[in-house]
Amino acid sequence: MLKKANRMSLVEQVISQIENLIESGHWTVGSKLPPEMELMEKFEVSRNTLREAIHALVHAGLLETKQGSGTIVRSSSALEATMHRHIAKSNLVETLEVRLALEREAAQLAAKRRGEEDIDILKTCIKQCRNAADKGELEEFISADIKFHKSLVKAANNQLLQDLYEHMTDPLYFSIQDVMVMDSEFDYEKEIHSELLEAICQKNVEDATKYVNEYINEFKKRLSR
Amino acid sequence: MLKKANRMSLVEQVISQIENLIESGHWTVGSKLPPEMELMEKFEVSRNTLREAIHALVHAGLLETKQGSGTIVRSSSALEATMHRHIAKSNLVETLEVRLALEREAAQLAAKRRGEEDIDILKTCIKQCRNAADKGELEEFISADIKFHKSLVKAANNQLLQDLYEHMTDPLYFSIQDVMVMDSEFDYEKEIHSELLEAICQKNVEDATKYVNEYINEFKKRLSR
Repeated sequence: MLKKANRMSLVEQVISQIENLIESGHWTVGSKLPPEMELMEKFEVSRNTLREAIHALVHAGLLETKQGSGTIVRSSSALEATMHRHIAKSNLVETLEVRLALEREAAQLAAKRRGEEDIDILKTCIKQCRNAADKGELEEFISADIKFHKSLVKAANNQLLQDLYEHMTDPLYFSIQDVMVMDSEFDYEKEIHSELLEAICQKNVEDATKYVNEYINEFKKRLSR
Repeated sequence: MLKKANRMSLVEQVISQIENLIESGHWTVGSKLPPEMELMEKFEVSRNTLREAIHALVHAGLLETKQGSGTIVRSSSALEATMHRHIAKSNLVETLEVRLALEREAAQLAAKRRGEEDIDILKTCIKQCRNAADKGELEEFISADIKFHKSLVKAANNQLLQDLYEHMTDPLYFSIQDVMVMDSEFDYEKEIHSELLEAICQKNVEDATKYVNEYINEFKKRLSR
């Protein structure tokens, strides 16, 4: 029994060491893990223990084993991997509704808590949106727009809110693009959130809420078309 | 290489069979898994393959191996387990803010989508709240209150919203109780959401939003005291 327990905890130890290397960004998403022999030496464990740890992380969605090309990092956190799998099973409207709920809360908190640095980042995003709009570059515009929303959520200063929001936004990227491209009445100017930025600058919670509710209703109308 | 790949997929198959048995409620949370020999026969796999699958599920938080008492089911879904671990690392205010954001969205959606059955359940919850309030039974009151909020979220008809909300509410149970008990101005009558229920019955989105915002602000004030 003791031997089994020891082995269990050894695997757990390797799992948490690998998790730390991934979460700290030492091993980035898309990168390849060092060869098996090197890892066995690094963690001072047997091949079986290492393989079992890697297997658990493959199942958790953090790693991916590809025939012939070794093991690569697929996701930067367990929450991200689980959320992506869960979202893949949900429908688009459900995911967007939850995302917008988080966005609404974020705007209210950001209006209270944003720092000067947040404002600088948000202003840069709006500038990028305007540039892309002037050139009529839709993809560039959507990237800048998503960056604006992510920065707004970051300014809310709530790590859990930010994690959930980001894990929900990335898998939606192409759907968001589809919704915008399909819309014949797409109007860049209406999509630039300069009034919301102004409310956040002024720490005006009421106006921030009003503008978020407006664009959320606008987006929902578009979805139902 | 082929052999390894086969073994990998065999472990994955056992993992997903066990997950299905748990998620479908065949094996409930708290129950003990059958003996190793029985499981090896059931899944037609070797001891090593079975152990590796169980190990991955222990790591994912779905199972727990206890010295001398075998393997028990700890959580009913991977999302639940990951959320709980993530929430354990977050602070209370952060978690409550996200929970309230989901609750606000849920009330608006419920006002539009609720069926007659939802109304019956919500009415029963309010009755239970009132009974508990009359007796001055705080624990009973909080249980009925949480049941009301969960039923409201269910009436929103968005599975992802419901999953996130429930996984966020259960680990908060004792904190919610603490916040209420610590409050010297605790007033049962003010905590019974009969006006919100009325708005949901009437499918009045505006009023539903207003009442939710009111009790959210009330709860936040209480938290900051």
